[in-house]
Amino acid sequence: MKSIPESLRALVGQAARRIDTPALVIDLDAMERNIERMARFAQQHGVLWRPHAKLHKSAHIALLLEQAGACGHCVQKVAEAEALAEGGVNNLFISNEIVSPAKLERVARLAKALHGRGGRLAIAVDSEQGIARLAQALQDVHANRGAIDVLVEINVGQNRCGVEPGTAAVELARAIQAQPRLHFAGLQAYHGGAQHLRKASERREAIAQVLKLVNRTRHEFDVAGIALPLITGAGTGTMVNEAASGVYGEIQPGSFLFMDADYAANEHDPAQPVFEHALYVKTQVMSVGQGRAVCDAGHKAHAIDSGLPRLHALPPEQALRFENGGDEHGVLHPANASGWLPALGETLWLIPGHCDPTVNLHDHLIGVRGGRLKGVVERIFTVDGRGALT
Amino acid sequence: MKSIPESLRALVGQAARRIDTPALVIDLDAMERNIERMARFAQQHGVLWRPHAKLHKSAHIALLLEQAGACGHCVQKVAEAEALAEGGVNNLFISNEIVSPAKLERVARLAKALHGRGGRLAIAVDSEQGIARLAQALQDVHANRGAIDVLVEINVGQNRCGVEPGTAAVELARAIQAQPRLHFAGLQAYHGGAQHLRKASERREAIAQVLKLVNRTRHEFDVAGIALPLITGAGTGTMVNEAASGVYGEIQPGSFLFMDADYAANEHDPAQPVFEHALYVKTQVMSVGQGRAVCDAGHKAHAIDSGLPRLHALPPEQALRFENGGDEHGVLHPANASGWLPALGETLWLIPGHCDPTVNLHDHLIGVRGGRLKGVVERIFTVDGRGALT
Repeated sequence: MKSIPESLRALVGQAARRIDTPALVIDLDAMERNIERMARFAQQHGVLWRPHAKLHKSAHIALLLEQAGACGHCVQKVAEAEALAEGGVNNLFISNEIVSPAKLERVARLAKALHGRGGRLAIAVDSEQGIARLAQALQDVHANRGAIDVLVEINVGQNRCGVEPGTAAVELARAIQAQPRLHFAGLQAYHGGAQHLRKASERREAIAQVLKLVNRTRHEFDVAGIALPLITGAGTGTMVNEAASGVYGEIQPGSFLFMDADYAANEHDPAQPVFEHALYVKTQVMSVGQGRAVCDAGHKAHAIDSGLPRLHALPPEQALRFENGGDEHGVLHPANASGWLPALGETLWLIPGHCDPTVNLHDHLIGVRGGRLKGVVERIFTVDGRGALT
Repeated sequence: MKSIPESLRALVGQAARRIDTPALVIDLDAMERNIERMARFAQQHGVLWRPHAKLHKSAHIALLLEQAGACGHCVQKVAEAEALAEGGVNNLFISNEIVSPAKLERVARLAKALHGRGGRLAIAVDSEQGIARLAQALQDVHANRGAIDVLVEINVGQNRCGVEPGTAAVELARAIQAQPRLHFAGLQAYHGGAQHLRKASERREAIAQVLKLVNRTRHEFDVAGIALPLITGAGTGTMVNEAASGVYGEIQPGSFLFMDADYAANEHDPAQPVFEHALYVKTQVMSVGQGRAVCDAGHKAHAIDSGLPRLHALPPEQALRFENGGDEHGVLHPANASGWLPALGETLWLIPGHCDPTVNLHDHLIGVRGGRLKGVVERIFTVDGRGALT
């Protein structure tokens, strides 16, 4: 677990307005409502939920999610898995391919350690070579039979990782089953691009295509006589569709926890719970010039890969346009004829365009109870997997 | 100083090919040549160079630059200044505005501490309120007279921070001089946008405009009878112009140290030393599919605000197109008819689009001597100011 510096620890119990800028702040009430809605959604649809910890990278948040019913957590990197495991998280799925022997040795050690404490590690594969190397690593650390769950990733339209659906997936499952230390656990079938299609009907249609590919693959497994214990995938954007499919046993949404500006721009699917913004970059006006105000949060404080942050909760007559001011600045212009600009020293709250890489810029998340403006700092979360790239 | 984990420490003395991916790797030979060329350039032009540490955020790299003749370092954030000071750097300029009393208290303490050990802190201002609060903070910590150098930032075309050139700057200088603990030290006159104009003639023209504004301001200072000890500014893109102006006493380039893909896309100005790429993201192919290979570096490993990374040093028949694959992936496509794709497990080297925010994603920089491919890991630098946002 990462440590919390004294200056931040001293904030606990203090008024939220004491938080210095820029800082990443969680509205704990909103986050907890999001968690509750997700738990209810999963229960109603009879699916397990394994939220993606690549979003928050925090062991304590992962444990909160488990208390609410999450069956475990996804991660993308071995180092993320190690960071969460160190923080007490026991059930982890590396939903990504790992091929370097050095990393696979760490995977094997982690699988053994989690197994030894009653937990479980799973991993995705999409190549024979990846399977052979993984098996070798588990042998090298003298792991038990079936010490790790291995899922075959199929390419369901993202055109990134994954073998093509159908017989290629069956062949990889056979290769997994031929390795005594590997347990074939199912299919990873996630379409990242579909999450961000703006219309609910577009997302429904994209997942209908995904389901065709998944079902074709299921058929090939039937023909081969290989049981498919699990099909897993889905994100915050499309999960209503996978959950309703009757095919997916687990869903993997992450962003529902915090909701970013990009997901909020999606047309709401009536089948989906309403998730609230729960993560903010608190920022302060540090300079005021002719027709502009400059705040102290640039793209070292919030990721801009999915668009600029949105200003939160300003009345219409105070509408502002946020312009990228570089690494350390945001430039604010009046967005309408009122010409209103915030004064020097004023506080603003930004909703990040994309929460995952935004959290990865910060070492801590400051949890506030009772609202951003009048609330109190309740706890500080360490971003345990920050920078966990390998 | 941040710590170096044992796994990285063990790399020192090992072959560079042992570096796990993704990782940020410095070609030390190239970096040292860049430093040498910068030192010679500054000497030839009779200017001091105060490189911008917002790039590397590393105390040890700052000390290397000082050994080569740098007169001190710029930073953008108080926390960056604190991190470098803790690592032994004594002469720092916060080239940015700070207005929150909590941060100004830290500024005052740092000014006092650096002064106490024979160093010096400087800071930029662009408002009366900022000056008054800074003075108050220095009084609160019982700092000596003139304990901090204060530079008035003027807006020379960036339209971000800074007062308008001319009399407004004189008024702020008077406000500084009225405060016994503040020492008026000159003008900060930096045009960030001009750095990235592609044609050398466009950059020359932009800095000619900057110089008009600077000279108009100098004239107003003459009229007011206030001496201007220093004019400072300039980045890697335009420094040949400011250095040749006879007006700038210091230049502040940072990126020359590592050179990113964006700066390399600038037309080379014959007056400028040739700076080499010295910073790479080492990445590995983790999946190969139909017409694509996927590497393990996404935009959590390299910043994409100034464009995608460029693939380094592949022969023409192996040209690849890098597509953004999200937070953790890069997707590679053949860039020509050869259709060549790297094999699973193969290593690739990316030149970041923008080095500053790329370094800020990493906790360590791995220094390699003797080339990326056949060299040896010589030392690990901690990114002491990583995430230093406040």
